[in-house]
Amino acid sequence: MTEDLEAHARKMAKKAAAREKIMATKTEERGLVIVHTGKGKGKSSAAFGMIFRCIAQDMRCAVVQFIKGGMETGERRLIAAHFADLCAFHTMGEGFTWVTQDKARDMAMAAAGWETAKRLIRDPEIRMVLLDEINIALRYGYLDLDEVLAFLRAEKPPTTHVVLTGRNAAEALVEAADLVTEMTLVKHPFRSGVKAQPGVEF
Amino acid sequence: MTEDLEAHARKMAKKAAAREKIMATKTEERGLVIVHTGKGKGKSSAAFGMIFRCIAQDMRCAVVQFIKGGMETGERRLIAAHFADLCAFHTMGEGFTWVTQDKARDMAMAAAGWETAKRLIRDPEIRMVLLDEINIALRYGYLDLDEVLAFLRAEKPPTTHVVLTGRNAAEALVEAADLVTEMTLVKHPFRSGVKAQPGVEF
Repeated sequence: MTEDLEAHARKMAKKAAAREKIMATKTEERGLVIVHTGKGKGKSSAAFGMIFRCIAQDMRCAVVQFIKGGMETGERRLIAAHFADLCAFHTMGEGFTWVTQDKARDMAMAAAGWETAKRLIRDPEIRMVLLDEINIALRYGYLDLDEVLAFLRAEKPPTTHVVLTGRNAAEALVEAADLVTEMTLVKHPFRSGVKAQPGVEF
Repeated sequence: MTEDLEAHARKMAKKAAAREKIMATKTEERGLVIVHTGKGKGKSSAAFGMIFRCIAQDMRCAVVQFIKGGMETGERRLIAAHFADLCAFHTMGEGFTWVTQDKARDMAMAAAGWETAKRLIRDPEIRMVLLDEINIALRYGYLDLDEVLAFLRAEKPPTTHVVLTGRNAAEALVEAADLVTEMTLVKHPFRSGVKAQPGVEF
């Protein structure tokens, strides 16, 4: 047992040294373009988790919800009640498009959301801007992908993180991004009749 | 244009009806076993996002960190400062095992973490328990998988959600879980020399 523990300690020391060497090469600080996509759960929750990381670090941040449903009113209420000084929260959509059934209004909402997003991203005091479910607005053609990409390339301050969530991220957005995670659906309880529940989905 | 909008409204109305029909079959409320695994980023952030959803819904919840590094001290401080009445927070590990280089201590920490976890899960007032990075402790053999699964099966109250995070989730855990998301690494900026940054990683 003692020998086993010593062998373990040696192996771990080697791992620690290797890791330290690798991490020493990671020196750049840079505002990232981050994409959460895929059919699995967790795209908005993980983005929301990063917004709370910013709040915990006293970094100013902002959320623009393009389509209601990703981050629900509970989260919005919580941020408004406790952290309104650090995090601005804008909800532009009035619900998923198959609920509103009004494309003209949806397009106007998306355009207004994008104007708000540009203003927030341009403000160098704001260190992270979450564009929640913007991929849906891009996919439906409510926003112009080239314009969004050109803006991020030209006008995002170098230390600002921008997080874009939603299924079906455009190929060109994935190309342009620094950090892309696909939330892959392995198993989902909706399939066995469980409904959306507080704490889990909203 | 008008015709296009009308066609869109008809299409969306059909979608809304189909969705309503499907959602009407989802009636069960049930405490879920939720697993976030995979090599991508977002496993702990998404779990942390759900903890904040619980807090936003005034649901009691708890976090046990098996390995430090998933959810960092910033988040812990934030919860302790604002939401200690709703969310208990226990950090059991002292860092990744290749940093501590002490297997005996790591095993004792993991065992203590699991005792704490069992106590929290048994408390029916606590509606969500996050076991952050427990998959690492299971993979290193610091905890016994069969014991963890048997406990969840036999003693988890029916309305309690338990969230287990970490790479390399065991096959039997995925089998036993209700909701499993794999965070798939598409692109990560560490590879191009960017270091871990506040708001994003911690």
